[in-house]
Amino acid sequence: MNTATLLISCPDRKGLSAAIANFLYTYNANIVHVDQHQDNSENLFLMRVEWDLTDFTLDMEAFTPAFQPIADRFQMQWSVALSAERPKMAIFVSKYDHCLVDLLYRHKSGELHCDIPLIISNHEDCRALAEFYGIAYHVIPVGKDNKAEAEAAQKALLEAHGIDLIVLARYMQVLSHQFTAAYPQRVINIHHSFLPAFDGAKPYHRAFARGVKLIGATSHYVTEVLDDGPIIEQDVIRISHRDDVEELIRKGRDLEKMVLARAVKWHLEHRVLVYSNKTVIFA
Amino acid sequence: MNTATLLISCPDRKGLSAAIANFLYTYNANIVHVDQHQDNSENLFLMRVEWDLTDFTLDMEAFTPAFQPIADRFQMQWSVALSAERPKMAIFVSKYDHCLVDLLYRHKSGELHCDIPLIISNHEDCRALAEFYGIAYHVIPVGKDNKAEAEAAQKALLEAHGIDLIVLARYMQVLSHQFTAAYPQRVINIHHSFLPAFDGAKPYHRAFARGVKLIGATSHYVTEVLDDGPIIEQDVIRISHRDDVEELIRKGRDLEKMVLARAVKWHLEHRVLVYSNKTVIFA
Amino acid sequence: MNTATLLISCPDRKGLSAAIANFLYTYNANIVHVDQHQDNSENLFLMRVEWDLTDFTLDMEAFTPAFQPIADRFQMQWSVALSAERPKMAIFVSKYDHCLVDLLYRHKSGELHCDIPLIISNHEDCRALAEFYGIAYHVIPVGKDNKAEAEAAQKALLEAHGIDLIVLARYMQVLSHQFTAAYPQRVINIHHSFLPAFDGAKPYHRAFARGVKLIGATSHYVTEVLDDGPIIEQDVIRISHRDDVEELIRKGRDLEKMVLARAVKWHLEHRVLVYSNKTVIFA
Amino acid sequence: MNTATLLISCPDRKGLSAAIANFLYTYNANIVHVDQHQDNSENLFLMRVEWDLTDFTLDMEAFTPAFQPIADRFQMQWSVALSAERPKMAIFVSKYDHCLVDLLYRHKSGELHCDIPLIISNHEDCRALAEFYGIAYHVIPVGKDNKAEAEAAQKALLEAHGIDLIVLARYMQVLSHQFTAAYPQRVINIHHSFLPAFDGAKPYHRAFARGVKLIGATSHYVTEVLDDGPIIEQDVIRISHRDDVEELIRKGRDLEKMVLARAVKWHLEHRVLVYSNKTVIFA
Repeated sequence: MNTATLLISCPDRKGLSAAIANFLYTYNANIVHVDQHQDNSENLFLMRVEWDLTDFTLDMEAFTPAFQPIADRFQMQWSVALSAERPKMAIFVSKYDHCLVDLLYRHKSGELHCDIPLIISNHEDCRALAEFYGIAYHVIPVGKDNKAEAEAAQKALLEAHGIDLIVLARYMQVLSHQFTAAYPQRVINIHHSFLPAFDGAKPYHRAFARGVKLIGATSHYVTEVLDDGPIIEQDVIRISHRDDVEELIRKGRDLEKMVLARAVKWHLEHRVLVYSNKTVIFA
Repeated sequence: MNTATLLISCPDRKGLSAAIANFLYTYNANIVHVDQHQDNSENLFLMRVEWDLTDFTLDMEAFTPAFQPIADRFQMQWSVALSAERPKMAIFVSKYDHCLVDLLYRHKSGELHCDIPLIISNHEDCRALAEFYGIAYHVIPVGKDNKAEAEAAQKALLEAHGIDLIVLARYMQVLSHQFTAAYPQRVINIHHSFLPAFDGAKPYHRAFARGVKLIGATSHYVTEVLDDGPIIEQDVIRISHRDDVEELIRKGRDLEKMVLARAVKWHLEHRVLVYSNKTVIFA
Repeated sequence: MNTATLLISCPDRKGLSAAIANFLYTYNANIVHVDQHQDNSENLFLMRVEWDLTDFTLDMEAFTPAFQPIADRFQMQWSVALSAERPKMAIFVSKYDHCLVDLLYRHKSGELHCDIPLIISNHEDCRALAEFYGIAYHVIPVGKDNKAEAEAAQKALLEAHGIDLIVLARYMQVLSHQFTAAYPQRVINIHHSFLPAFDGAKPYHRAFARGVKLIGATSHYVTEVLDDGPIIEQDVIRISHRDDVEELIRKGRDLEKMVLARAVKWHLEHRVLVYSNKTVIFA
Repeated sequence: MNTATLLISCPDRKGLSAAIANFLYTYNANIVHVDQHQDNSENLFLMRVEWDLTDFTLDMEAFTPAFQPIADRFQMQWSVALSAERPKMAIFVSKYDHCLVDLLYRHKSGELHCDIPLIISNHEDCRALAEFYGIAYHVIPVGKDNKAEAEAAQKALLEAHGIDLIVLARYMQVLSHQFTAAYPQRVINIHHSFLPAFDGAKPYHRAFARGVKLIGATSHYVTEVLDDGPIIEQDVIRISHRDDVEELIRKGRDLEKMVLARAVKWHLEHRVLVYSNKTVIFA
């Protein structure tokens, strides 16, 4: 189905639903999905509308001038996305390849609505995998002394390919503030703990030492504060005293790839709205 | 908050959202919750709208004549409920009291938006509990030969109290077709298995014999086909070889009460829409 | 069944299993449950053995002198408990009564193998509930200035009743170090977060602010460091953006009572072994 | 670590634990894992013991003559497996490749302790994947008229490679009774439902039609009764009214691969004991 998806965030006011519904009905939209949320503590209205474009009488190139007056009236932050335009996603990876394997397979099987023009890594390890899936693999080594140059090279690649979304699939380098600031809400990371527990390094070792009964994984947008960005998805799995650290790492791999895949899918389907450093998931 | 909730089910057509939104806006509704769903396989539109009545300019006694033209135009099945009108719920119970204990505590702590004028049982066992919570307790014994008389007595009590919802909290008698037909989508049962597995008698014994790794519970509306009505909620819990049948029964109790409580809560909050022998939960 | 349960913790060495098995076989024990665990990182051997006493030829009063030589040889920390001796449990509660309701019902229905001679509270609120279950209810108010006196009064009651286990069922006062030191691994608390996330005050509010996708509850032994004792059990439940803080609190109640009940049950059945500030659960 | 694992099933009798522990201690075994279970309803004793062979003084080639007297005394069904001997696993697949992708990646990353000499399929589709992992791929088409010949060809390959375990990774052909009888408890299947619900064909379509709130997957040993063999592992995932059949299939893929992978791993680590058409998992 050829659809458009509108995401809206604005102060909650009467008449919002009617204004949006009327606008869409005026142009004969066939709505296929509506979800809205009121955050009363912040008096916010958040909405996702998706409609079939088959009978839609407004040319999507004319959408912005047509819709902007309504957006202005209600002080909306808004965006519209077309299913016909596939987002471009870059994957960053280091040596652990389980998330990469998972994302590439899901992409090939049609679960992820995007193109993947390239994979960037600081190691050679995943090249054969990338080639199996026919995706360009760029190695940019990162050391103590060349971080700025490395990031410049990464950015050049991202810009050359018009990348919309960067997925850190267990990429083991911390990105600079300048880098993440250049891609607000467009860098998704997977952290191997149930944040905010065990943020930072070696979460599985610390979970083992603390004796928790569940381990978790968290996918979030990257902001300039490490492991503190808006959480998109989390999940946990039960462990027991029989599980040593290696087993936690093994069990955690399954969690990490599932949680990251869900977060990426929702982002690509325009189901995520961010406000107050948290997310609404219209899934 | 003093609200009204509208539940709508009708063939999907363009203009539905706009018609409803405009109607509500006309009378200055402050919408607090909207959820809608399109079932494409049946071309059905299903919706729940809840709005604050504070500024609403239409007297709710005049709601039906005002809304009916829209309902007719779109061939809607619809109902409206007011938060100010608390539904009246009767609980049927036999000897197992865990679901009853749970429902009464939730009711007392404000989780269940209803009044409970009476409890009906075929045994004396739960009388002290009912009295602790100050609820009338009626014992109507049921045997092979007096089922029709027993049901007549039950119906008389239900009618006398204007009961809207009957909850079978492990009530161990099968109701007649005439009885259930008199309360369509108004009798909620809890079955101690993951339906459709192990419908009928002794599900925990059969789960043990089959060697399943999870046991479940299912809450559903009662129809004339045993354990076949629309499912409102289900959940499961992991078991192991260490669990004998008694332990399954014990673990199952926790499942049963949680699953039943969620189903009852959703029904009372007008979050359940039934179609094609299944449910949409607007939660 | 009339059983004895032996819990053992010692350095791992060859011959341990054989020594224990032979000892039990010598006296004709009919073993009903064995579970053992090796923590390789600490070279520890941990074991739980339960046997039927019907045919056991050693008088349990003579157990210690008979077993001590083996215990000495392997440097065991050990304890033995008889199913015929029901532990005595005290419950501390403040105003939130959901965990208390749950524990008392489980106790009455036979799930918790213990006696409950008394409930201690700093408020009157739960008295009627205690009386319904026929349990003595003592109110000891706690303020800024009388904490020491209050704890002295609590201790006097605990000692007068020979209490083995103290359960803090949402008791909202922090116990002094002297108090908790007097009951090592004998005070169980329920914390309303997935520790170590959101330790301390107002965890649901902080979970809401952080935008986590799951909330949790943790039951742990109380040590002198707040919310840092050995974790016995944890669980989580999924939440969504539709859940405000009040809804988190409501959903959390179900988690809290389930998690606390499991922890208490395992403790009472001698299934918990503590080492290195964590627990092994032989369940 | 170089270990041996003993699996025992026999009538429960006093002295069993002592006899086994003494036998192992006689030869200086360093036990690393013991788990045992008594099924009281069938008076069965089931046990798994794993020990480090480093200091073990009995040559494993002499294990059977040394242990058989004990086995005879207690009427044991038993087997012993060496970690040094990697089982040989064949995978059968049709067109759906998600379970195959998952198993091959897990194998490569060291999670599955086995060799995979070959993959057998009735279609060409997965050949490139097999080649990427360097595993021989044999296509044996199966139609209405050549089933016997196809199975004969399959058996010839399995025998030529000394296959110990056959995994049906969404293999869409029903095996004949003769075939499955030749590999008792050595053929593992994944069924895409929570058995016994929705056994047979099209379980996702039937789950959708019935309106269940969770979908499941079940891994089991194949017996001559379709979908009725001993269950090794099961799991479920929550669905909602927003999920159409295609989405159930997509969500189910994640379940299927996780559940199958766990079952295969446990089998390969000799953690599964079968009795009375069900399993004990010593995990």
